[in-house]
Amino acid sequence: MRIRVVNPNTSAAMTARIAAAAAAVAAPGTLVDAVHSSFGAPSIEDHHDDVWAAAGVLEQVRRGQAEGADAFVIACFGDPGLHAAREVADGPVIGIAEAAFHAASLLATGFSVVTTLTRTCVIADHLVLQYGFERKCRGIHGTDIAVLDLDGADGTCFETILGTAREALARDRSGAIVLGCAGMADLCGELQQRLGVPVIDGVGAAVKLAEALVGLGLRTSKSGDYAPPLAKTYAGLAQPWSP
Amino acid sequence: MRIRVVNPNTSAAMTARIAAAAAAVAAPGTLVDAVHSSFGAPSIEDHHDDVWAAAGVLEQVRRGQAEGADAFVIACFGDPGLHAAREVADGPVIGIAEAAFHAASLLATGFSVVTTLTRTCVIADHLVLQYGFERKCRGIHGTDIAVLDLDGADGTCFETILGTAREALARDRSGAIVLGCAGMADLCGELQQRLGVPVIDGVGAAVKLAEALVGLGLRTSKSGDYAPPLAKTYAGLAQPWSP
Amino acid sequence: MRIRVVNPNTSAAMTARIAAAAAAVAAPGTLVDAVHSSFGAPSIEDHHDDVWAAAGVLEQVRRGQAEGADAFVIACFGDPGLHAAREVADGPVIGIAEAAFHAASLLATGFSVVTTLTRTCVIADHLVLQYGFERKCRGIHGTDIAVLDLDGADGTCFETILGTAREALARDRSGAIVLGCAGMADLCGELQQRLGVPVIDGVGAAVKLAEALVGLGLRTSKSGDYAPPLAKTYAGLAQPWSP
Amino acid sequence: MRIRVVNPNTSAAMTARIAAAAAAVAAPGTLVDAVHSSFGAPSIEDHHDDVWAAAGVLEQVRRGQAEGADAFVIACFGDPGLHAAREVADGPVIGIAEAAFHAASLLATGFSVVTTLTRTCVIADHLVLQYGFERKCRGIHGTDIAVLDLDGADGTCFETILGTAREALARDRSGAIVLGCAGMADLCGELQQRLGVPVIDGVGAAVKLAEALVGLGLRTSKSGDYAPPLAKTYAGLAQPWSP
Amino acid sequence: MRIRVVNPNTSAAMTARIAAAAAAVAAPGTLVDAVHSSFGAPSIEDHHDDVWAAAGVLEQVRRGQAEGADAFVIACFGDPGLHAAREVADGPVIGIAEAAFHAASLLATGFSVVTTLTRTCVIADHLVLQYGFERKCRGIHGTDIAVLDLDGADGTCFETILGTAREALARDRSGAIVLGCAGMADLCGELQQRLGVPVIDGVGAAVKLAEALVGLGLRTSKSGDYAPPLAKTYAGLAQPWSP
Amino acid sequence: MRIRVVNPNTSAAMTARIAAAAAAVAAPGTLVDAVHSSFGAPSIEDHHDDVWAAAGVLEQVRRGQAEGADAFVIACFGDPGLHAAREVADGPVIGIAEAAFHAASLLATGFSVVTTLTRTCVIADHLVLQYGFERKCRGIHGTDIAVLDLDGADGTCFETILGTAREALARDRSGAIVLGCAGMADLCGELQQRLGVPVIDGVGAAVKLAEALVGLGLRTSKSGDYAPPLAKTYAGLAQPWSP
Repeated sequence: MRIRVVNPNTSAAMTARIAAAAAAVAAPGTLVDAVHSSFGAPSIEDHHDDVWAAAGVLEQVRRGQAEGADAFVIACFGDPGLHAAREVADGPVIGIAEAAFHAASLLATGFSVVTTLTRTCVIADHLVLQYGFERKCRGIHGTDIAVLDLDGADGTCFETILGTAREALARDRSGAIVLGCAGMADLCGELQQRLGVPVIDGVGAAVKLAEALVGLGLRTSKSGDYAPPLAKTYAGLAQPWSP
Repeated sequence: MRIRVVNPNTSAAMTARIAAAAAAVAAPGTLVDAVHSSFGAPSIEDHHDDVWAAAGVLEQVRRGQAEGADAFVIACFGDPGLHAAREVADGPVIGIAEAAFHAASLLATGFSVVTTLTRTCVIADHLVLQYGFERKCRGIHGTDIAVLDLDGADGTCFETILGTAREALARDRSGAIVLGCAGMADLCGELQQRLGVPVIDGVGAAVKLAEALVGLGLRTSKSGDYAPPLAKTYAGLAQPWSP
Repeated sequence: MRIRVVNPNTSAAMTARIAAAAAAVAAPGTLVDAVHSSFGAPSIEDHHDDVWAAAGVLEQVRRGQAEGADAFVIACFGDPGLHAAREVADGPVIGIAEAAFHAASLLATGFSVVTTLTRTCVIADHLVLQYGFERKCRGIHGTDIAVLDLDGADGTCFETILGTAREALARDRSGAIVLGCAGMADLCGELQQRLGVPVIDGVGAAVKLAEALVGLGLRTSKSGDYAPPLAKTYAGLAQPWSP
Repeated sequence: MRIRVVNPNTSAAMTARIAAAAAAVAAPGTLVDAVHSSFGAPSIEDHHDDVWAAAGVLEQVRRGQAEGADAFVIACFGDPGLHAAREVADGPVIGIAEAAFHAASLLATGFSVVTTLTRTCVIADHLVLQYGFERKCRGIHGTDIAVLDLDGADGTCFETILGTAREALARDRSGAIVLGCAGMADLCGELQQRLGVPVIDGVGAAVKLAEALVGLGLRTSKSGDYAPPLAKTYAGLAQPWSP
Repeated sequence: MRIRVVNPNTSAAMTARIAAAAAAVAAPGTLVDAVHSSFGAPSIEDHHDDVWAAAGVLEQVRRGQAEGADAFVIACFGDPGLHAAREVADGPVIGIAEAAFHAASLLATGFSVVTTLTRTCVIADHLVLQYGFERKCRGIHGTDIAVLDLDGADGTCFETILGTAREALARDRSGAIVLGCAGMADLCGELQQRLGVPVIDGVGAAVKLAEALVGLGLRTSKSGDYAPPLAKTYAGLAQPWSP
Repeated sequence: MRIRVVNPNTSAAMTARIAAAAAAVAAPGTLVDAVHSSFGAPSIEDHHDDVWAAAGVLEQVRRGQAEGADAFVIACFGDPGLHAAREVADGPVIGIAEAAFHAASLLATGFSVVTTLTRTCVIADHLVLQYGFERKCRGIHGTDIAVLDLDGADGTCFETILGTAREALARDRSGAIVLGCAGMADLCGELQQRLGVPVIDGVGAAVKLAEALVGLGLRTSKSGDYAPPLAKTYAGLAQPWSP
């Protein structure tokens, strides 16, 4: 089984870390193929970055689809381009935010999200509502750590995240923590050990959900809302991405 | 007051019709400036088109912002790029879907949407929920008319829309109709006359809401969620749109 | 265009201030006509006051309708008599609470309300739910300032409101403030300057929304829920108000 | 125990029928005291009637409070003036719509409402939402029978209501019927027999809920939202009702 | 009228106290018959206890049904076995959690729950949502008092509950307190006196609601969801409870 | 990895079919261990069956926990005993209803459930709400096929289910079908082929979700709501199941 993991930002270092996180949990026989878009933002921290990230995701999903990927993971916590990617792909497409929300809600009656910049909380808010987790998700907490500062994260980042998570568990009466950024994947294990509750990294969760769905012979529904994009010729610089 | 109306698709004909619809309702002293993106889809009829439309909207909002626009209208019923555009703009940014929903809910206790392709209903569904109109909006109805077939719409389109609206009013127990596409603006008057209930075109509604907010001295909140996009250099073809 | 602004309380001084606030934002060509009921409470601060205010609103809307008003504003934050007034009026009827909620939700992802007596918060609560703003409205905060103490409001009132608003913005993670009383209209400008976020006064917002709807040729839906009141003879002191 | 049942319309005949319905279910020792307002509409069938009904309710609740009533029932399905009446009364105040909703939700997993004019459905809609029954209430169905036509209701009314109820049970997958008008009380028994499911008349339900609460020594909360109305002098014809 | 009150735990002492609480409010002519299951947990403080409690409730409801009980009360705040008991019983079945929620929402615009172990809050959470009280219930607060420690509760328990209730009223802006355990019934009166707001004990509330429904001639709907359990032979130790 | 699949009914034939369905999708290295309770109903078709099923599930989860199972599946569409089982188990516990809902919502924007007896729809309704799928789940449809009639299901059952599913897809505008009974697992493949949309069997979905969570090193949260059941001695026939 080939799972294409798309990093929606253009940071090669982060793609490598995402690849490692994905590979670490992949089943034997699963081939993880981590890529990033040829264009867009080096980190995704506001709606503006998110818009271009969505376009970049489509570039890579289309290529993956042509190359026979069985499933796709969108490795940014805003799940940019998710619905459009499902139009393009035949196999399942999983965003890491939704993957983490689904996993957490199977392990605890309520969970809290710990994320990077406070201004991104509203993006998670919107996803939580659209996906139906507005009662399971008991709080979304920014740490105001920039995404790329997580790269080679030293102790300071870890301690900040740990502290925010601890407070969130108590204040929100939550039983699990969802990490709100693909770049936090490598902190997951130690956080779980220190906090004593399930800590969910969306990258890993998405890879395993993708494996699960492919293993069940399930693919994205092509009836109705996720039918393939209508063929039309795009103008200007978008022309190469015409469906 | 200068209002930049951004058509998120690349059809010049449709931009002209949107410009006319906007100009028809603009107050004396309001300068409507209708533009379309230099890239993207000629019509927006699925999530894939919507992703590129969002990027195109940002191109034009940024230009409008540089050129001193006082407010912006996003003239596609999926409100593509709305939140990102609000990060970019100082003045108000109004999507035509939200504008129509707000207007309708001031005139009737419930309304129904009549739109183009059935597959786009889910896009409206998501907006309705995010904006909080899930109880006021009593139904979203596709006509399976393609967006560009509305251009120079002959009697067939009109009759289909009229029939769908009539059925919707009865079945949904609604008191108003929201037209689910910028391309339906010029049918609005006659539909209203024939149906005997308020029929709301989002383009007009958005222009008037923009005028209202500017007239009140109100601008997009720059505290928190809609703060200006963080400065960073985008890669590849997105580089010129780096914030 | 003639907009009748109905102050649902019987304080002439407050009517004058409301008239000034309305006139200050009205477009050239808009005639604002501020009135108050011939009966009812001098200020509206609980459900009991609100009931009589609703009846008073109908008195004035009926007169305005007879005198050819194009639209109506109900200038009390509980929107008393709103639905009944829409039955009476042909043109749009806008409550200042709903107007402020609609405006705020176009400028920020979430807003907070700062109002007068804490006991009135539940009235706003009920409106927020009925209108669909229960997710956009992140908090409703009483200051326990009596409505008529706002009249000729000295620095104390202002500072209390400013402080409550500041706390609300932080605690609720909000991007805008809605003022929860028509009597706060003249504090709006300075509050906005001090707080650095949009501050919305419902009186101004309602006037501009009314202008917008009239400008679009839209009137209250007369099909179904807002059809004219059924003709019948009322008994006792209500007899003169028989529909 | 003295329960004052307030008919919010001014029809003496209907008050008599309401009195009979209340007396028929009252416990030994309960004194039912049915009254109607000295002013207002002879039947309540739209928002306009409802506004004046609310004022009339206050007249009678205040008098009942002075005369030592232990509890109050508001015998119109729109529960007019409910919150204000609770400010005035020390004992419990029960609206017949809420009473019927509460009772029905204890007997079936879902219920349907059968009411008079279709245009009143929206009033019930608003109550259902405010009270929290939006999932238990699976449908609200108008029969377009005028309230006063129920008076001395012949077979035609009965058959229409029966037919509408039957259809509602099937279409809504409901297990109980709520009658949406105080004037339907005397049809309740036969409807129940014919339909084979619980049929709830709000007048009876409200009387028994009032008895239950008084029997428990419970009174309306006077802390916060339902504190007594603030003392102030009302103007004009409302002067005698100043709190 | 015979009301069978089922204590879902197996503590005879608690059954006696529940019987006393029920009898204290029962109308003349109401025969309260308090029983407990022959099997299960001595106190119900987690989901595991709750599962066995549900089975025990069925044992006693079936017996009560055979012996001609007119109504049933399930006297544990998790309402264990409620829906199944309604399948078995012809008369009304009332859980004490739902009874308390219904009563509280008739007396105040919002209420708070004070309960025993914090871990049981999630059980109440689930009920609140299922019953539709998620907006009326403004907070659920654990005291971490074990259920059986309430038995012969000394001053410490009382003071803890009082303190938690006081804090809840202020923090949640609530107007009433719901006691979250049948074992708190005898503290109800004094708490009410000390707090100055309605304090609702579910046992009493359920008895009075049962009386009310029986007095109205209403029984559990047997059409659809609560039809009698299908006849089948259970295996193993459950065999005697085959429907 | 050892996954214990608990059939909550006592039909050995159905356990065998569930075992086969589970084994068919299990990864190499996953040991599926299908069992059923020693007591309870031969099929679960109402709330009464469900109560005893929950107790039976606990019997088997406790045994599985003692025998070192890594995860548990509850193979009945009502997810009986789910929360209590999570208190008992260290590893993840997955109900087949929730598993199917989660999977479906990753493949389509909305899904419909096709189940057995119509009277069980309300059980699914309650789960859908508790889990947060009330917007994704667009309809729950009974076929009125008894659970055990699915055993050795001939063409009639298949055709009925197929027909109901087809109608559901059209009426609900859904993109996927969830099968509402463990006994439908072996029809899944052919249904999917005939319907052309994803058809989700909860047994398979739950096994793969369990594998996914175990593969991620995630276990049930033991902090708070799912802490181990409190140690206490149960009375009577429940004594052997004392925690």
